[in-house]
Amino acid sequence: MRMYDLIQKKKNGGVLSKEEISYIVQGYTSGKIPDYQVSALLMAICFQGMNEEETLALTLAMRDSGDTLDLSQIPAIKVDKHSTGGVGDKTSLVLTPIVASLGVPVAKMSGRGLGHTGGTIDKLECFPGFTTALEEERFIHNVKTIGIAIAGQTANLAPADKKLYALRDVTATVAQPSLIASSIMSKKLASGSDAIVLDVKTGNGAFMQNFEDAKGLAEQMVRIGKGAHKTTYAAITDMSQPLGHAVGNTIEVIEAIQALQGNGPSDLMEVVETLGYLMLLAANKVTNQQDATQMIREVINSGAALKRFAEFVEAQGGDASAVYDTNLLPLAPYKLPVYQSKGYVQQIHALEIGNTCMQLGGGRLTKESSIDLSVGIYLCKKVGDAVNPDEPVAYVYANEEEKGRNAVSLVADAYTIAPEKPSEKSAVYACITE
Amino acid sequence: MRMYDLIQKKKNGGVLSKEEISYIVQGYTSGKIPDYQVSALLMAICFQGMNEEETLALTLAMRDSGDTLDLSQIPAIKVDKHSTGGVGDKTSLVLTPIVASLGVPVAKMSGRGLGHTGGTIDKLECFPGFTTALEEERFIHNVKTIGIAIAGQTANLAPADKKLYALRDVTATVAQPSLIASSIMSKKLASGSDAIVLDVKTGNGAFMQNFEDAKGLAEQMVRIGKGAHKTTYAAITDMSQPLGHAVGNTIEVIEAIQALQGNGPSDLMEVVETLGYLMLLAANKVTNQQDATQMIREVINSGAALKRFAEFVEAQGGDASAVYDTNLLPLAPYKLPVYQSKGYVQQIHALEIGNTCMQLGGGRLTKESSIDLSVGIYLCKKVGDAVNPDEPVAYVYANEEEKGRNAVSLVADAYTIAPEKPSEKSAVYACITE
Repeated sequence: MRMYDLIQKKKNGGVLSKEEISYIVQGYTSGKIPDYQVSALLMAICFQGMNEEETLALTLAMRDSGDTLDLSQIPAIKVDKHSTGGVGDKTSLVLTPIVASLGVPVAKMSGRGLGHTGGTIDKLECFPGFTTALEEERFIHNVKTIGIAIAGQTANLAPADKKLYALRDVTATVAQPSLIASSIMSKKLASGSDAIVLDVKTGNGAFMQNFEDAKGLAEQMVRIGKGAHKTTYAAITDMSQPLGHAVGNTIEVIEAIQALQGNGPSDLMEVVETLGYLMLLAANKVTNQQDATQMIREVINSGAALKRFAEFVEAQGGDASAVYDTNLLPLAPYKLPVYQSKGYVQQIHALEIGNTCMQLGGGRLTKESSIDLSVGIYLCKKVGDAVNPDEPVAYVYANEEEKGRNAVSLVADAYTIAPEKPSEKSAVYACITE
Repeated sequence: MRMYDLIQKKKNGGVLSKEEISYIVQGYTSGKIPDYQVSALLMAICFQGMNEEETLALTLAMRDSGDTLDLSQIPAIKVDKHSTGGVGDKTSLVLTPIVASLGVPVAKMSGRGLGHTGGTIDKLECFPGFTTALEEERFIHNVKTIGIAIAGQTANLAPADKKLYALRDVTATVAQPSLIASSIMSKKLASGSDAIVLDVKTGNGAFMQNFEDAKGLAEQMVRIGKGAHKTTYAAITDMSQPLGHAVGNTIEVIEAIQALQGNGPSDLMEVVETLGYLMLLAANKVTNQQDATQMIREVINSGAALKRFAEFVEAQGGDASAVYDTNLLPLAPYKLPVYQSKGYVQQIHALEIGNTCMQLGGGRLTKESSIDLSVGIYLCKKVGDAVNPDEPVAYVYANEEEKGRNAVSLVADAYTIAPEKPSEKSAVYACITE
């Protein structure tokens, strides 16, 4: 087999066999096939696409390029949850303790934030002492006892995906549905859970700008999951405005705790309840959404979910006292109000809010950047809300006054105000459960 | 400027500016832009193409990436001739002394053969002592005094093209018209002639398999030449069967000498006279093809062209006595006849003949291969000729009997014989002279 011929085949619209895809992934991971041949192939794939079999073969070859986690010691059906990334997306923080309280263990490999989207691990680090550097034994022990463990992605999980992603990132070949789907799914499949629930976000703050693309990606990932014999469900959710009110790190953790106390914003709770339903369904705990919603609300109202969250924070070395007193989680000292003209909020540009938070220091420009957990943006008014000129639409939390003032003007620009109240929109567009 | 953005732009069908193309060519030549980004761009170009301005900008940037030859000391209009490569193509050997005899100096940078097509330099090396490693001073002196000099391409002529071509060669991005055209023309423009005549071959033995593609390439190169303010003409000629009777190295030189003696095969002479006309036209020596043909035939009949060829061989260190006695140019010892069934030759598959010659040792599989100048194939019967089973259609010249016998069967297979005489076809399909 020669890489040249495989590039030529794909360039001409041919279909690569399972063996050919294995050859490419193994050769690239071992360094036998050079970057310049793989980048040419990736660009050819951007134009010619990959069919279902090719996408599955690529996913499995990447899954098998390194270690895979063995969670078989944990008796229950383990469900992993993945979001394609968005602004203000603290869903995992709320959802994980809820489903764990309902008997669904979550063994999660999570990433750090990059660009305008935040990462779960960064957020959890606002609890002093919290660590995601867990040995496999402790990771499994925590899942067994508390029902939750979140670890940073280890170096040797799907190394082929890591190498391919880095190459795609510098050759303008990221935005190809089969490549995106196989990249996400290879890591999820290597993480060893029995079932996977995907939150595919759509809108200006998401990777997939429009619903049809997001639906296509969701369907492709569900097909891959099935092809790998894992129950896989997906929801397509809104990312045209940030999720909830809080955007940042500490500020999102506070909002997540409030949600676990029963005071979550409606859009966040809609997403939490939908994904919670899909996770409970995947774990055979429910057969319909009504039952799931009731169970979820019960563990929130009883305080069980909040307690579980505190246990989880503690089990990973964090000081959990802040779970019961969010004043212990300090925000940045400059709290600057943002005003807008009278009318109704038509849009809050999620990408611009995400970028503004990054400029405040709350996000990473490069993988090496360190981030400021205390800065953020609190959106008092969301799409559909009435605005009065003397009432702030948002607050900016900054550590430097000038950066804060700059952010105030950017946040104001991210709002679109008009005289008419816009029609109400659901935060969840669709679910794929078959 | 970031290479990433330029890849993305081309991927999305955008047009790269002159400045952007310069940035890419300079950055790649200097090593600042890595192979893997350039190969992704090349693949995007294969799908999105390049317009006329982009192709010209790429050509000029590659021309300017290294040295350019200054031939201004030579007073006449220097005309360079380039063939896209074919099987049995000894046109340059015949044509160059003819036009030199007619006052058109030829200062030619030539390549060695690769794959199934031969190279002029390899052929000329059958004269003992002949060298193409000429210092610039001697090269120019020879053009001034004899009207001919042929040098091997120096390392620093269009180095960007060299590097890009090597990358295209391993990433399946060779076959793109704008990339082919700019590669050829960048070297021709760096070689310093005042005018360029192109022989674009078409058929199974050529790079361009069909006429329309060949015509497109020819037109593109002519446009580039004009864009670079050089008179540029092109002919599109047949390569569905080998040109002339002889395929190999020494055997082709013998046929070229016979042609200069007035005994050239009709298809070869048609190509020679057509390209000769274009060269004389480019040098303002004639205004029509009739005059050119007459002048060409005169310098053949008078012996002037043959004498010029001998002078040229001598001037580059070769023993020219063989020009007047071709028995001094020994062919391989095994001369094996090839037979076919009764009928008419419908086709002689040029690519198969070229590959067979390569397997005999007469061509290079890789750039590092050494070649056997004495082997070859002599096609007694060409398309349209009548075949009798007791009369050889061809002879194979081999240095090993087994290789020879194998070649006999391959040559026989390359012939298609049918009962009907095929209609006659010209060896020249079209000329572009404006």
